[in-house]
Amino acid sequence: MVSTENSPIRTISDSSRTLIPITIANGDGVGPEIMAAVRRILDAAEAPLAYEEIQIGERVYRSGISSGIRPEAWGSLRRTKVFLKAPITTPQGGGFKSLNVTIRKTMGLYANVRPVRTYAPYVETLHPTMDIVVVRENEEDLYAGIEHRQTDEVFQCLKLITRPGCERIVRYAFEYAVANGRKKVTCMTKDNIMKLTDGLFHRVFEEIGTEYQQIQQEHMIIDIGMARVAKYPERFDVIVTPNLYGDILSDVVAEVAGTVGLAPSANIGDQVAMFEAIHGSAPDIAGKGIANPSGLLLSAVMMLVHVGEPECATRIHNAWLAAIEAGAATADLGGSLSTSDFADAVIARLGEAPQNLPEAKYTKRITKPVPTFRIPRVASEKTMIGIDVFVHHWGGVDGLANSLLAVAGDEFELQMITNRGVKVWPMGMPETFCTDHWRCRFMSMDERPVQHAQLVALLGRIAEGGVDFIKSENLCLFDGAPGFSLGQGQ
Amino acid sequence: MVSTENSPIRTISDSSRTLIPITIANGDGVGPEIMAAVRRILDAAEAPLAYEEIQIGERVYRSGISSGIRPEAWGSLRRTKVFLKAPITTPQGGGFKSLNVTIRKTMGLYANVRPVRTYAPYVETLHPTMDIVVVRENEEDLYAGIEHRQTDEVFQCLKLITRPGCERIVRYAFEYAVANGRKKVTCMTKDNIMKLTDGLFHRVFEEIGTEYQQIQQEHMIIDIGMARVAKYPERFDVIVTPNLYGDILSDVVAEVAGTVGLAPSANIGDQVAMFEAIHGSAPDIAGKGIANPSGLLLSAVMMLVHVGEPECATRIHNAWLAAIEAGAATADLGGSLSTSDFADAVIARLGEAPQNLPEAKYTKRITKPVPTFRIPRVASEKTMIGIDVFVHHWGGVDGLANSLLAVAGDEFELQMITNRGVKVWPMGMPETFCTDHWRCRFMSMDERPVQHAQLVALLGRIAEGGVDFIKSENLCLFDGAPGFSLGQGQ
Repeated sequence: MVSTENSPIRTISDSSRTLIPITIANGDGVGPEIMAAVRRILDAAEAPLAYEEIQIGERVYRSGISSGIRPEAWGSLRRTKVFLKAPITTPQGGGFKSLNVTIRKTMGLYANVRPVRTYAPYVETLHPTMDIVVVRENEEDLYAGIEHRQTDEVFQCLKLITRPGCERIVRYAFEYAVANGRKKVTCMTKDNIMKLTDGLFHRVFEEIGTEYQQIQQEHMIIDIGMARVAKYPERFDVIVTPNLYGDILSDVVAEVAGTVGLAPSANIGDQVAMFEAIHGSAPDIAGKGIANPSGLLLSAVMMLVHVGEPECATRIHNAWLAAIEAGAATADLGGSLSTSDFADAVIARLGEAPQNLPEAKYTKRITKPVPTFRIPRVASEKTMIGIDVFVHHWGGVDGLANSLLAVAGDEFELQMITNRGVKVWPMGMPETFCTDHWRCRFMSMDERPVQHAQLVALLGRIAEGGVDFIKSENLCLFDGAPGFSLGQGQ
Repeated sequence: MVSTENSPIRTISDSSRTLIPITIANGDGVGPEIMAAVRRILDAAEAPLAYEEIQIGERVYRSGISSGIRPEAWGSLRRTKVFLKAPITTPQGGGFKSLNVTIRKTMGLYANVRPVRTYAPYVETLHPTMDIVVVRENEEDLYAGIEHRQTDEVFQCLKLITRPGCERIVRYAFEYAVANGRKKVTCMTKDNIMKLTDGLFHRVFEEIGTEYQQIQQEHMIIDIGMARVAKYPERFDVIVTPNLYGDILSDVVAEVAGTVGLAPSANIGDQVAMFEAIHGSAPDIAGKGIANPSGLLLSAVMMLVHVGEPECATRIHNAWLAAIEAGAATADLGGSLSTSDFADAVIARLGEAPQNLPEAKYTKRITKPVPTFRIPRVASEKTMIGIDVFVHHWGGVDGLANSLLAVAGDEFELQMITNRGVKVWPMGMPETFCTDHWRCRFMSMDERPVQHAQLVALLGRIAEGGVDFIKSENLCLFDGAPGFSLGQGQ
């Protein structure tokens, strides 16, 4: 393979087989060492791959590209649609952006898939039978990154949960379960508190679940769910959950398994998919030739399944399991093999199967989730009936209420004012602590439908009244059902 | 004590000591049984308390009060300012609201404090030396409960983090550490993603931390932090964290300790405080007289410290530890003692101390956190320079951009459009999946300061242009620093 700094070069193979082009990046720290080991194993297993190498990571960041990826590298990802990525180092400070987040979001990699299992008695663990796959929604939730400072005291981040986002991740989780012979999918949300957003995720789980009657299904509130995973991970199988919970849960699962250094991951999109180990670039041991290549290797196994090479994936995975059973171990597992010796131990066992650990057997790629959300939907009948106007105001609520009552006009009624969600007008409690950030709910008289022009006129009167409004949220009925929560105490 | 359904009656004591009035509720399920046991122990230890009983929970919900608490009960909480609460049952469905959330928010109980420790070898656990106190912010974050459905596809929940909210909880955590001889406070946030909101929490932790140089301090990202707590809880001491993370973390800590049935909690406000076990009302064993009263008893111990009776708290806590060492155990701990027998076992050891478990020694109440946020702050210089207008639009971005360019006017420039936070105009990537929810950023020309009237006029033009705006967020500089995040890819 030939590569240059700036342009990816397609590898020309002398084999007569049709090769599958994939993009690779050697990354930083131990990245180049483990990638070299993984490629040796892939070659020995005759994985029909043609590699395009791109430059990402620390050197690219340091060259002044704040995204950590050269613009021309996107072309390779678009062409091959498959990316095997070694860990990179993101420099601290200086406005460098997370390359993973950028790739996930611009390439639409909506599913983060993390299988975590243990290999007792060959790898020490407190949970010898655990075997969990976390399917984390990867694009939305609080990670949309939309934040606003609104007042002297109050900062806001938007949590966005969308129906297509829920549908695709939930469907992916069920399809994964079917394709991999899994028995149960657990959904975790906090919908006892967030009834609209997390409530949607839970509802979509139940809706789509009806299509997968062969799979056992359950829902848990995330707090008790996470606690149960931490204590009894062997009770879980596939878990599907929104982005933030999934981020935390993935780390908890890997940590309690004790196999952070061995765990692979996939980031799946409609068009592009990225595969990588979950561990970092480990600069402290870089260049010593002692890093464990297993996380990246098992990611490559997931990749082979994805590109339609389940036999090759099975062959490599079983050789790796056989090597683990034979005691092949790098320093992190208490052994003394070098990265390269470990790769040799796997290569020597190609064609073998494990004796005691469950044998890997991949038979098909994951059925591509049907993107039901692309089917034109019948739009809801949306009716605006009011507006929440958020105000920056220092002082008591009564003065604010009086100012707003004076400008509400004939069409709107000031229904309530809340502070951090707690109703403080009318009839608040003196113990409620108030910040300088007030949500003022105006409803149309008799909940008559209103037009944008009326909302704009109301905002105009509020501004004229000298009230510092800082944001607004329309209040709508969707097919007659309120699209907004009540105030606490309302 | 005399009590009636409807009116709390002040207990008249015949003792010459001044009694401290507290409010109690017997709750549902096992609540009355464990409360009776706890009160017998408190009486035997001569705790100088006068009880007012209020009615909360299932019967109140069923009587048609959706908050689960009778209006007149608030008067008792206001009077005594101290509440010892047995677990209650919230009926499923029917719009019943969480009583805990209502009490926390209306009474301003900003700190949820959960000490969790293990009692090896007397109570089985995987973590014999763990001893963690989770100090969870209790009022804000996503739990403000402000949710809006914005389009056919998109639902939103607001995450609000405030400076006073951060200051009081962080200060409380440090004061707790000092008062209880703790050595370290760990702060956990996700500020690598949520730089404004979680960034504020982290920054306030560092600011206030400078006043507590005697306490070791560290910050961890919540995903790896939660994972480390699950695997190595013995490495942690006091942990302070925003509401959602704290909710999950509290459950993880209690579960990995294996002492959910024994763990107490406190909800602390400036004026009122509530103490309760973390376990539920356990209706399956209600009325059998076999429930473990330890969680409520240790909550009462926290309460005694809070009301300025540390000697009495110490006496009861040590008697309880001595009873545990002696093998006193209800069914949940593998023993055969009834609730009442267990209480007798504690009472019989009043005056004793544990032989092996660390002795309890309370010397003072927690110094009331100084509410620095009440000190009038110098307001920042706030300058509006633009507005994010969120639009409900089905179709491509170019048509939307053209509509908006046509109405931007001379004062504003359409700077970008994002979908779920990812920049899709100008120069989006074709792989980015788009919902029907678009954030359109208008900046003033040359970032000149703008007035509310200009924002209103812009919204008016957008409405006239036939664009369905659904929310707005002003873009401000605070003392010259941008109070808003950039778009992903911007």
